[in-house]
Amino acid sequence: MAKKPIPYKIYLSEDEIPKQWYNLNAAMKRKHDPFLNPATLQPCTADDLRPVFCDECIEQELDRTHEYIDIPEEIRSFYKMYRPSPLVRAYCLEKALGTPAEIYYKFEGNNTSGSHKLNSAVAQAYYAKKQGLKSITTETGAGQWGTALSMASAYFGLDLTVYMVKVSSEQKPHRREVMRTYGAKVVASPSDTTEAGRKILKEFPGTGGSLGCAISEAVERAVSSDSCRYVLGSVLDHVVLHQSVIGLEAKAALEKYGVQPDMIIGCCGGGSNFGGLIAPFMGEKIAGKNGIEFVGVEPASCPSLTRGRYAYDFCDSAKITPLARMYTLGSGFMPSPNHAGGLRYHGMSPIVSELYHEGYMRAVAVEQTKVFEAAEQFARTEGILPAPESSHAIRVAIDEAIKCKETGEKKVILFGLTGTGYFDMTAYKQYNDGAMTDRIPTDEDLAQGFATIPDIPQNKEN
Amino acid sequence: MAKKPIPYKIYLSEDEIPKQWYNLNAAMKRKHDPFLNPATLQPCTADDLRPVFCDECIEQELDRTHEYIDIPEEIRSFYKMYRPSPLVRAYCLEKALGTPAEIYYKFEGNNTSGSHKLNSAVAQAYYAKKQGLKSITTETGAGQWGTALSMASAYFGLDLTVYMVKVSSEQKPHRREVMRTYGAKVVASPSDTTEAGRKILKEFPGTGGSLGCAISEAVERAVSSDSCRYVLGSVLDHVVLHQSVIGLEAKAALEKYGVQPDMIIGCCGGGSNFGGLIAPFMGEKIAGKNGIEFVGVEPASCPSLTRGRYAYDFCDSAKITPLARMYTLGSGFMPSPNHAGGLRYHGMSPIVSELYHEGYMRAVAVEQTKVFEAAEQFARTEGILPAPESSHAIRVAIDEAIKCKETGEKKVILFGLTGTGYFDMTAYKQYNDGAMTDRIPTDEDLAQGFATIPDIPQNKEN
Repeated sequence: MAKKPIPYKIYLSEDEIPKQWYNLNAAMKRKHDPFLNPATLQPCTADDLRPVFCDECIEQELDRTHEYIDIPEEIRSFYKMYRPSPLVRAYCLEKALGTPAEIYYKFEGNNTSGSHKLNSAVAQAYYAKKQGLKSITTETGAGQWGTALSMASAYFGLDLTVYMVKVSSEQKPHRREVMRTYGAKVVASPSDTTEAGRKILKEFPGTGGSLGCAISEAVERAVSSDSCRYVLGSVLDHVVLHQSVIGLEAKAALEKYGVQPDMIIGCCGGGSNFGGLIAPFMGEKIAGKNGIEFVGVEPASCPSLTRGRYAYDFCDSAKITPLARMYTLGSGFMPSPNHAGGLRYHGMSPIVSELYHEGYMRAVAVEQTKVFEAAEQFARTEGILPAPESSHAIRVAIDEAIKCKETGEKKVILFGLTGTGYFDMTAYKQYNDGAMTDRIPTDEDLAQGFATIPDIPQNKEN
Repeated sequence: MAKKPIPYKIYLSEDEIPKQWYNLNAAMKRKHDPFLNPATLQPCTADDLRPVFCDECIEQELDRTHEYIDIPEEIRSFYKMYRPSPLVRAYCLEKALGTPAEIYYKFEGNNTSGSHKLNSAVAQAYYAKKQGLKSITTETGAGQWGTALSMASAYFGLDLTVYMVKVSSEQKPHRREVMRTYGAKVVASPSDTTEAGRKILKEFPGTGGSLGCAISEAVERAVSSDSCRYVLGSVLDHVVLHQSVIGLEAKAALEKYGVQPDMIIGCCGGGSNFGGLIAPFMGEKIAGKNGIEFVGVEPASCPSLTRGRYAYDFCDSAKITPLARMYTLGSGFMPSPNHAGGLRYHGMSPIVSELYHEGYMRAVAVEQTKVFEAAEQFARTEGILPAPESSHAIRVAIDEAIKCKETGEKKVILFGLTGTGYFDMTAYKQYNDGAMTDRIPTDEDLAQGFATIPDIPQNKEN
C-alpha cells in the first residue's frame, strides 16, 4: 500500500491532545534513588514537601506505579489554545544538507512563552488554583519559565511573584515586561522582600544575584504563607511527567504516517524537555519494543552528563532544596558564560540521569559557536529562528544527517525544537559579529565544582 | 443537521492553501484612479515602473481584469512552511467579555517575521529570482517588513540590502540582528552608500533619518543596477493581491463550519493586511452576495481615512515615488510618536481608499492607551501577546462584542491578528508603567500636513 504523503507540518486535531500524561518513572525497571531531606538524609516524604509544593504535584512526584496519569479537562482546555504543537518534516533542511535521512522536529515554540515550559506551568498553576491557593512564586533566570508561569497564572487568576536574577532582569528587560503584561510581579533578586535576600544584600552589596539566591527567596516566600506555594520549571519528576505531552503527540503524529524514528535527539538542561520528548518512546524501549537511539545534547561549557558525577547533590546553589541523586558538576560549579541560559544548570533530572547511567541513552556535549552555526543554517532553511538551547539539538541532528549522507543510511531522525530565539538576539549579535567564543571547563574547573558535592554517607556508598 | 463543533483553532490542510490569489482590483466596479508619473502627471506605464520593480509585480500591479491570479508552486512550497495560518475561535475572550457574539481571528504572527508581511515578501523575492536578478533592496522602519524580506531572500538565495531608519536601527537592535542572521545587509539610513544619503548627511549631520529618506536610498540603489530591484511591503495593489491569501484561507476555514461573518475588522496602516483580509469577502459584497460590515481601524494619531483627504499624493515623504490617489494626511504630515510603527503612514492603499470612498466599508480611529488596554486583555485571555498594530483591530472587536452584550445580538465577528509584539516591549513597558499618553493631531497639525499635498490639476478636478 502506498504511504500517505507527509505534509510539511503534521497537526493532530484538538481531540487528539493526550488525555493522560505518560509517567516514565513507572515504566523504569530500576527507579532513580529518592530525594533526601537534607536535615535527616532520609527519603523525602509528602509531608516534607507539603510546605513548599502543591499537594497534587507532590503526589505525582512520588508516583512510581501509574504509567498513565489523567490530564484534567481544565488543563486540556488551556492546551487547546496552543496545542497540539506541530510536528514538522524538515524538507528544506534535508534538501540543503543533501541527506537521505528523514528529519522531523516537534516545535514547542509556537506560543507566547516561546518554549515548552508552558506545558508544565499550566498544570502547576491549575493544581495550585484547585487547592485553593491564592498565589504562587518561582525564580527565573533567562525568563522563559517566568513568562510561561505568568501566562498560566493570568489564565487561572493567581497572583504570581517571580524572583528574577537581578543581572538577567537588567539584561533582559523585555522578558520582564512580558511577565508584567501578564500581571506578574517581577522582583529583581536579591531583594529586600525576604530574609535570604536581605542577608545577601548586606554581605554583597551591589551583587547581580544568582539563580540559587532567587530560588532561596521564592522558597522562603512560599513557606512563609499558607496560601502560597513554590513551583519549579524543570528537573523534578512531575515536571517531566507534564512534558510527556510533547512525546505523546510526536508519537501519535508519526504513527499516523507509519513513521518509526531511529534516533531521538533533545537538548538537556534540567532535563524536562528531553525527558518529556522521549517518555513514551523510552517506555517502549525499556519494555524491549523498539531499538531507538536516544541522544541528549548539552553545552560543552556545562557538561553534567558527559563529565559530571552521579551523586547526591543539592538542586540549587544555596543548598536549601532536597538532595537529588543525579549527574552533577557540583552545585558550586560556575559555568562559563554561555548564552543558552536554560542549559546552564549544574545537575540533571534524576529520571534522565538514571536512564543515562543504565545505558538507555547517550549524551553529547557541543560547543557554542558550532551550535549557532547550526542555528543560522536552520533559520535560513526552515524559517524558524531557534532558541540557543534548542539549537544544541539542531547541531546534533544536522551532524547525524550529514553522517547519513556519507553512509547512505536513510535514518529517521526526530528532534525537539523547544523554543524560539526572539529574546536571545544579544547572543545572535555576538555570533553575527564573529565575537562568540567557546570556553570549555578545565579539569581544575570541574574539580572545584566537584568539591562542592556534599560529603554524605550515601555518596560514599554509591 | 447538527453543526460540527468548532475547535479553538481551525487549521486547513496544506493542500488547501489557495492555488490562486484574489485580485480585488478586478472585482471593483469603479477602479481606483491610476498612479501618475510625477514628471509627466500621466498614468504610469509598465515601462515607467520597470527600472524600480520586478516585471511580474508590475504586471500584477496593473492587472484590473483577472479576478484570480495563479500562485506559483515555488511560492506555495514556501507558504507550506508556515501556512495555512490558524483561524482561531476566541472562546476565552468571549467568556471573559460575557458576550453572545462569536469572535474569530486569523492569526498571521505564527512565523519568525512575526507578521503577515512574509506573504508578500516571499512572492516578491520569488519573482525577482525568476527574473534572474541577483539582489533586491528595501527600506524598513519598525523592522517587520525587513525581517520578512530577509527570510524570503535567504530562501531564494538573493542578496538583500535593507535601509533601516537610523533611529529605529539604534532603538531596535534586536530586529536588526534577526535580519543579519538571515544574511541581509542592514544599512542605517541615511548612509554614505547613496547620493541621496550623502546629501541628507551633509545637510543634517547627526540626523536620525526617516522612512522617506530610507526609501530614497533603496530606490536609488535599485535603479542604479540592472540586476537589482526595489520591493515594497504595503500600499501597492500587487501587495494587497499577495495578502489576499489571508482572506481566502479565512473564508475557506469559516465555510467548513458553515459560519458567515457579520463583521470583519482589520488594522489599517498602508492597507495591505486589511485589503488582503477582506478581499474575497468584499468581492462578494460588491457582487451583492453578502451584507458584511467592514471596519478599518487606524490610530487616532495618524487618521488618514477618518480625517484625511482623498487626493493625489506622493507615497513617500521624499516625493520621489509615483503619485497615488488615496486618503492622505499629506506626505509631510508628522504623526506624533505612536508605537504602532506599522500604522504611522500618511497615506492608504488606493484600493482601500476607493472602497472607503464608495462606502463599502467604514473606518474608526482609536487612541493608543485604549489599544494597549485591549492588547493586555487579549494577551491574558487568549495567550498571544499581540503587536501594537494588530491590537487596534482587537480594540474594536472587543468594543463590538461588548455592544452585542448590551443588545443581545449574536454577531459573528472576524478580525485580523496580523502579528506578535515580542519586539515591541518598550511600548508595553510604557503602558505597564502608566506612562503612555495619547496625542491626537489638532486641526492645525492636519493643515500643516495637507499643505504638503501637491498642487496639481488632478487634485483640483477631484
